[in-house]
Amino acid sequence: MNVYQTIIDAAQAVTPEMVSVRRDFHKYAETGWLEMRTASIIARKLKDLGYEVLIGEDVCERDARMGVPSDEVLKAAYERAVSQGADPEFVKATEGGFTGVIGILRCGEGPTVGMRFDIDALGVNESTDEDHLPARDGYASVNAGSMHACGHDGHAASGLGVAAVLMQIKEHLHGTVKLIFQPGEEGLRGAKSIVEKGHLDDVDYLFGAHTTGEAADGGDVTPGSYGSLASYKYDVTFRGLAAHAGGSPHLGKNALLAAAAAVTNLYAIPRHGAGASRINVGRLIAGSGRNVIADEAFMEMEVRGDTTEINEYVSDYAKRVLESAAAMHDCTVEIKLMGAAQSLNSDEDFCEHIAAVCTEKLGMKVTEKLAIKLGGSEDVSYMLNRVQSHGGKGAFVRVRSKMTESAHKRKFDFDESYLTKVVKVFCGMTYDLMKK
Amino acid sequence: MNVYQTIIDAAQAVTPEMVSVRRDFHKYAETGWLEMRTASIIARKLKDLGYEVLIGEDVCERDARMGVPSDEVLKAAYERAVSQGADPEFVKATEGGFTGVIGILRCGEGPTVGMRFDIDALGVNESTDEDHLPARDGYASVNAGSMHACGHDGHAASGLGVAAVLMQIKEHLHGTVKLIFQPGEEGLRGAKSIVEKGHLDDVDYLFGAHTTGEAADGGDVTPGSYGSLASYKYDVTFRGLAAHAGGSPHLGKNALLAAAAAVTNLYAIPRHGAGASRINVGRLIAGSGRNVIADEAFMEMEVRGDTTEINEYVSDYAKRVLESAAAMHDCTVEIKLMGAAQSLNSDEDFCEHIAAVCTEKLGMKVTEKLAIKLGGSEDVSYMLNRVQSHGGKGAFVRVRSKMTESAHKRKFDFDESYLTKVVKVFCGMTYDLMKK
Amino acid sequence: MNVYQTIIDAAQAVTPEMVSVRRDFHKYAETGWLEMRTASIIARKLKDLGYEVLIGEDVCERDARMGVPSDEVLKAAYERAVSQGADPEFVKATEGGFTGVIGILRCGEGPTVGMRFDIDALGVNESTDEDHLPARDGYASVNAGSMHACGHDGHAASGLGVAAVLMQIKEHLHGTVKLIFQPGEEGLRGAKSIVEKGHLDDVDYLFGAHTTGEAADGGDVTPGSYGSLASYKYDVTFRGLAAHAGGSPHLGKNALLAAAAAVTNLYAIPRHGAGASRINVGRLIAGSGRNVIADEAFMEMEVRGDTTEINEYVSDYAKRVLESAAAMHDCTVEIKLMGAAQSLNSDEDFCEHIAAVCTEKLGMKVTEKLAIKLGGSEDVSYMLNRVQSHGGKGAFVRVRSKMTESAHKRKFDFDESYLTKVVKVFCGMTYDLMKK
Amino acid sequence: MNVYQTIIDAAQAVTPEMVSVRRDFHKYAETGWLEMRTASIIARKLKDLGYEVLIGEDVCERDARMGVPSDEVLKAAYERAVSQGADPEFVKATEGGFTGVIGILRCGEGPTVGMRFDIDALGVNESTDEDHLPARDGYASVNAGSMHACGHDGHAASGLGVAAVLMQIKEHLHGTVKLIFQPGEEGLRGAKSIVEKGHLDDVDYLFGAHTTGEAADGGDVTPGSYGSLASYKYDVTFRGLAAHAGGSPHLGKNALLAAAAAVTNLYAIPRHGAGASRINVGRLIAGSGRNVIADEAFMEMEVRGDTTEINEYVSDYAKRVLESAAAMHDCTVEIKLMGAAQSLNSDEDFCEHIAAVCTEKLGMKVTEKLAIKLGGSEDVSYMLNRVQSHGGKGAFVRVRSKMTESAHKRKFDFDESYLTKVVKVFCGMTYDLMKK
Repeated sequence: MNVYQTIIDAAQAVTPEMVSVRRDFHKYAETGWLEMRTASIIARKLKDLGYEVLIGEDVCERDARMGVPSDEVLKAAYERAVSQGADPEFVKATEGGFTGVIGILRCGEGPTVGMRFDIDALGVNESTDEDHLPARDGYASVNAGSMHACGHDGHAASGLGVAAVLMQIKEHLHGTVKLIFQPGEEGLRGAKSIVEKGHLDDVDYLFGAHTTGEAADGGDVTPGSYGSLASYKYDVTFRGLAAHAGGSPHLGKNALLAAAAAVTNLYAIPRHGAGASRINVGRLIAGSGRNVIADEAFMEMEVRGDTTEINEYVSDYAKRVLESAAAMHDCTVEIKLMGAAQSLNSDEDFCEHIAAVCTEKLGMKVTEKLAIKLGGSEDVSYMLNRVQSHGGKGAFVRVRSKMTESAHKRKFDFDESYLTKVVKVFCGMTYDLMKK
Repeated sequence: MNVYQTIIDAAQAVTPEMVSVRRDFHKYAETGWLEMRTASIIARKLKDLGYEVLIGEDVCERDARMGVPSDEVLKAAYERAVSQGADPEFVKATEGGFTGVIGILRCGEGPTVGMRFDIDALGVNESTDEDHLPARDGYASVNAGSMHACGHDGHAASGLGVAAVLMQIKEHLHGTVKLIFQPGEEGLRGAKSIVEKGHLDDVDYLFGAHTTGEAADGGDVTPGSYGSLASYKYDVTFRGLAAHAGGSPHLGKNALLAAAAAVTNLYAIPRHGAGASRINVGRLIAGSGRNVIADEAFMEMEVRGDTTEINEYVSDYAKRVLESAAAMHDCTVEIKLMGAAQSLNSDEDFCEHIAAVCTEKLGMKVTEKLAIKLGGSEDVSYMLNRVQSHGGKGAFVRVRSKMTESAHKRKFDFDESYLTKVVKVFCGMTYDLMKK
Repeated sequence: MNVYQTIIDAAQAVTPEMVSVRRDFHKYAETGWLEMRTASIIARKLKDLGYEVLIGEDVCERDARMGVPSDEVLKAAYERAVSQGADPEFVKATEGGFTGVIGILRCGEGPTVGMRFDIDALGVNESTDEDHLPARDGYASVNAGSMHACGHDGHAASGLGVAAVLMQIKEHLHGTVKLIFQPGEEGLRGAKSIVEKGHLDDVDYLFGAHTTGEAADGGDVTPGSYGSLASYKYDVTFRGLAAHAGGSPHLGKNALLAAAAAVTNLYAIPRHGAGASRINVGRLIAGSGRNVIADEAFMEMEVRGDTTEINEYVSDYAKRVLESAAAMHDCTVEIKLMGAAQSLNSDEDFCEHIAAVCTEKLGMKVTEKLAIKLGGSEDVSYMLNRVQSHGGKGAFVRVRSKMTESAHKRKFDFDESYLTKVVKVFCGMTYDLMKK
Repeated sequence: MNVYQTIIDAAQAVTPEMVSVRRDFHKYAETGWLEMRTASIIARKLKDLGYEVLIGEDVCERDARMGVPSDEVLKAAYERAVSQGADPEFVKATEGGFTGVIGILRCGEGPTVGMRFDIDALGVNESTDEDHLPARDGYASVNAGSMHACGHDGHAASGLGVAAVLMQIKEHLHGTVKLIFQPGEEGLRGAKSIVEKGHLDDVDYLFGAHTTGEAADGGDVTPGSYGSLASYKYDVTFRGLAAHAGGSPHLGKNALLAAAAAVTNLYAIPRHGAGASRINVGRLIAGSGRNVIADEAFMEMEVRGDTTEINEYVSDYAKRVLESAAAMHDCTVEIKLMGAAQSLNSDEDFCEHIAAVCTEKLGMKVTEKLAIKLGGSEDVSYMLNRVQSHGGKGAFVRVRSKMTESAHKRKFDFDESYLTKVVKVFCGMTYDLMKK
């Protein structure tokens, strides 16, 4: 019996259901840590398929979650999730922002294969134009300010497709499958909390995938990614003292002036001789009135580095700049970590392995370059680095399909053939790694 | 016949009406350039009293108005004014933010005596606590975000009281009376547009008055003020170009960085050897997202100087800093004048004259010091300087009454005996200057 | 017997000797803490006149001296002083930079009258042009880079004239006379060390004087000065770590960058609402080569304030800026106090007293204004404030005479009639205060 | 006949003469544009060997020379050269800083092979310690502040060795040989002036070489270099206006403040997304005295980039920062180009060619890696890029020999076997390219 062919056929068969799930997730888009409806439905479906299911605090380490919204926002999101049809059994565990889900399939002794699917939406208002398919076909986001503009609706749906197909070929496998549905990838907020909980400690092979536009050479799959920048995201608040700018400027403690000193000196952090570094202060909001010494200044900033070491260098320097700028103008400063990623490198031999399976067993076309550079940052890096640190292998796969627009835009959309392809690659490789 | 005694009695008699008007203005508080209801009622009452009335573009030079709100805001304010009982005849002229009113009383040959009453509210939310009199007695502002927290409701009402009393003693006067009701004093936005229209060019004597807390020596009146700082208020917008902070920082034009460079260097403008200077950037809002090079930065700032010359020095230097900071980071900058005041000095001999009239004719107590320093800035300076520039005299009078709290606070209130006092001083002096 | 007349005559008689001494001091100009020849000759002459003489560490508190040159410079100056005719007995005590001298005349019970004469030259190269009198007449400075361009040669000589005349009228006095010859006034380095030694603690009346150009009204004397700015002078050294700017910029600790951050933020120290403040970084020297991260940066800076409080405010803020700028870029900073002055105010009634004595007893003309503003800073303020702090009185007198050029210029010279005038005022007042 | 063997033997034979020349050049070290003695002797020797010789303005384009010392320094250097034994015939042409020399050997039709030898010393004081060979053996630099601490004495000497050997095998060559002796490589000042004169326009193959320490694998030669950073070196002078910092700070134009604003913002130039960039202000000298607003500030700075494009980006941005910082504080700025290099890449196939010749024909050992990264900047890049721009090939060769210390240090020295190796590689390759 050719199990690969079974996988190919099953992937095709499960596609309509994936499309339907994907469009449902798209319509009820939920941003990081608020994926309560989404997570509860994933858990429900995994359980119904026969998976052992973890959800809530069993998945995410409470204090390792970054950039969690305020209690008020969490509460409102919970109510919305319930009102929009969250699964009543599982949604409870997500209260307070515990929206990770893990589905486990145990097939006796053997390797552990992990897969990561990110599930959160972006803070974008979806286009309502007729030429935007989700709008025309009625599954555009109904949640204002939340939109799946990065394809994570597809990532989540493909994870359920993988779950369904693996369950079908279960008898041919030995070892353990872990399907990790991660919240809060945008802003690099969620992966670390799952890693800290220990879920990657026994994983021998790890995959992740991301929607990526068509390849010039028509390939379906690029097995690996590399070179994403390690990054930290910080929210920074300077606090000083208000005073009348005309009458008693010397009585103020000027938080806006401290922030300005910080900004210039942050950008002036020396380049690192060993590779690229980045720094950005993307937002700055300070002061209350023209004639008042500003008593507060808030900044959203980030640092990046080619390597984790370079990122640490910039981050340490940045903190020194922030603290010194505050001290300089007699203010205080609070620095809050809002997100983090490490640098990411797929294993070369593992990429070659994926390429071989895709080409020889699954009839897919692999791009000429087996790995491409990731411009930004991805927190799957936390998972991959943990797996690699104990000798495991992994790859962040780029699955190609047509995209209407670049990610994060209001009319972003992707060709749903993506879903089928992911199921083929992930299940094909899982079988190859776990076959008896 | 003792006309001074007539004035004293009339001031007392007109007080209940002034109190009623003041509370009405207080309830329907309107901020700068939006005083459409207020202005229309003032015009109505002046006309009913027999004054020649100017309103709308006849009062304020269109392009000399500073800090005028957007068309949208103006339109909404107009509709609100109409719905809150604006005078149907006069409100039309105020459309688009022409909310100055002048009442003229011509009594043949003789000197021209001008008086200025400012009529705008502040952008403050009034307290609703029971211990705040306007709240308890039902005349707290019904317009959210607008409150007479600086006493201009009283200034406006006192102007109508003065109008009523002067009309009663009209036959004893020769010359011309000009009662100037000025919009937009807060932010120093309105006076200049009236001066530019030429209304101060023939004024020989000018008064203005401001509510001021009780004097230590129990005086009712301090005839003069001096030493207010000349000032300019600017809104500044830097514009650059957005780019991804991780992938292509070099493609951005960083408006936030330009603003930060500007801020530090603005505060670093060298002190002036001849007197005090001030600079403040009170608000700064920049950028759209953490990982995007900020393409816009907005600042509210101001400069001040002991003298008009020092103010000009700081202003010129500040503009150079703003333009250079923009150029430095390849951005553009727009600098918009939002308000202005000159330095202000009451004429010493005129203050003595007021003191003499108050003490000897009106039975009022004058404080020991005939003039006190004005900490902030006042745009009556534009009027006073124009009058002084052609040989006229003037004073900015401080009329004392109990205040509950310092100005600009949410529970600010003043003792309405203020109204009676102003009528006595202004009418007494007008008579003294214009008596046949 | 009219002692005032005796003083007038004696002042005239002692003038040729003062001129001669002044020209000798002028020729052998010595800058701050190097006045070894000058001090030794002053001590010699005081002793020969019959004064009790203090010199060396008995006058200046070692650690309270500021801006003392290096041991090498001190050593060379000592050798030069010896070779240029220093008094062999007294010069020894000046070794190492102890160049203050005090002459004491005890006349039994009574008030203590102190007088301060500053004796140091400036770091200026004297003009050799024929139209410069000292050059033409052969007493221009022979010490390159040292010139009496501020009249302290005259101040020193006048102190010896005062000493001679007071000794003549000794029998008419009761109390104690203290003639204080102070080193290092330039840079505000010397006064504090004498105050710290306690020499002003028992002084009831204090005079100082300074050469000042002719008055518009032809007056000889302006009894008082006020309003000099309190000041601190600092030498600042940032230390970091060198690294190759191309290969490993991240390994450097950039002292030049730290200094630049400090400079901008120093100038940005908020104005003080209560009066004038000043800040200046006058020199900055940093780095060793174009392609090396600078490991050292040296700055000469100063702060000033209308009052001692304002000066302290600016100084404290400046230190915070310096330390924070260093910390920001991982450098260290050393801040060395090089000079200091307090704000200075002559006692009004004492000025009136001086005016009366000058006019009524000494036949001198006093200027209409009894006190004039001092633009810069003067460390006689330390002495005056100490005297005033225990209830004493004092004045910093401006004695008028023609000047060729403003002070600190290469052709500065003053009319030596100054010397006679000082003797008259100081001895006249001393007699008036100490007469039996 | 085996010409390669002839070359090997001749290289050996010419070594003692090269050692002698190298030590002579070492003893009379001359820095950039002052290599008058050195150049005249090179010209003499080339002519004596039979080469056509170009020198003076025939070699270097006058206005394309960068960082030329002042006339005063040039004049003194000329006099020194003459007094230290410069060749009387050729030295004349070097007057004013025209110290390039080209030797041409024409062998009929065929390719043109160029070789570049840099000849200038560094501004370093040579060690006089006994353990420093040149000091012990009496050929340490006699010119204070000038030392061959980068091996260019060897480069120059090896060029003369190459000249001698090529002349011996002349009959076996067809085409043209150009031996280019370049002044002012340190500071990247000289190459461009030779390129601008057109001397590289007809060159088909270009070599340069540099002394490099022993390879880990014992190789004699690394055929290529790559990745040197493109760079510009600037001297920057800000000019403002002095004023008294206490009395009239507003009258100054603060050049030190302008420079500080420039420094911070220079370091804050955004990173380039496409590769490494560098910026450094290595020296800053500003101001004349503590209490004077600084009227001048001088900076030595440089920018670099992975590619010529990135370097241009940083340079353009830097100029904008400098000009804007000057304008901001009402100063002027002068920016003077003092040196420049482009990015450099040896041709891969040409490196393989060199490797083959060295290994197979010359019996030399080539390092495993055929090209190594150049950390800094090299202005041979100008020549190489010109040659490559018209289809020529080239390589910057690293010839290995023991070094006592890293370059630019006071005890730098290299094993003179270097000389022999260069002659072998250069002559071997020339023969291979030009053989009939």
